[in-house]
Amino acid sequence: MKYGTVHFEDVQVGDEIPPLVKGPIQQIQLTRYAGASGDFNPIHQDQEFARAAGMGGVFAHGMLSMGFVAQALTDWAGAGGVHKLGVRFAALVRLKDIVTCKGRVLAKSSKDDVHLVELEVWAENQRGEKVVTGKATLALPAHE
Amino acid sequence: MKYGTVHFEDVQVGDEIPPLVKGPIQQIQLTRYAGASGDFNPIHQDQEFARAAGMGGVFAHGMLSMGFVAQALTDWAGAGGVHKLGVRFAALVRLKDIVTCKGRVLAKSSKDDVHLVELEVWAENQRGEKVVTGKATLALPAHE
Repeated sequence: MKYGTVHFEDVQVGDEIPPLVKGPIQQIQLTRYAGASGDFNPIHQDQEFARAAGMGGVFAHGMLSMGFVAQALTDWAGAGGVHKLGVRFAALVRLKDIVTCKGRVLAKSSKDDVHLVELEVWAENQRGEKVVTGKATLALPAHE
Repeated sequence: MKYGTVHFEDVQVGDEIPPLVKGPIQQIQLTRYAGASGDFNPIHQDQEFARAAGMGGVFAHGMLSMGFVAQALTDWAGAGGVHKLGVRFAALVRLKDIVTCKGRVLAKSSKDDVHLVELEVWAENQRGEKVVTGKATLALPAHE
């Protein structure tokens, strides 16, 4: 795969980025995510703890789902191009869920040599329920 | 540590949350983050690749820094309370950097039984340069 191959001129308002499918979510991924992020909150690891906390059981770190959305963006446009990312955590992601990340171009703008695209982004589970919704701003290279 | 022990009434506009210090960032953490997130972009793993891509060398996943900010919030208020999080990626995080995450309460509001606090959040490196800036909205429990 080559990075940064999407150019500003080739993107149109309304375009969708390639969907990124993640899952089924397994406990080991949440455990690995704890180790990598340093967030060892047992609510993501321990069913009894999560039930006692009133959450009905373990759920994925919100930042893991947000990271999936970010990866859909960087797979499309390269890692250096994401300027802003904001999301609302709309629903919990549970073990065995399959999370599909999508995005659609809302607007384009250029100022001097900076070419920005604004996207609506979201992630949905296997029942089509949105688990994350938000917006992102990316800088894309222009031809030449 | 107990989660969800911060109550709405105990928070005042202008309060700062406890800072969370992460680092020094090591390559192995970026490699672990790749495995946990599924984002294996070599720009975070391979110095030669990152230099060839014009990035001057390996840098941390933006989502890792954003995750640090989220952890500062969830350490303070519990994992279930983060409703919204939006950030701008202001500067790259490099190997050996130390990232300190901070937040300050901007506003409080209540509607029915939902008690929200809005915070300014940011992360800075060991030179005091902001690497991430943004805003978060959290729901906090009220006393009785």
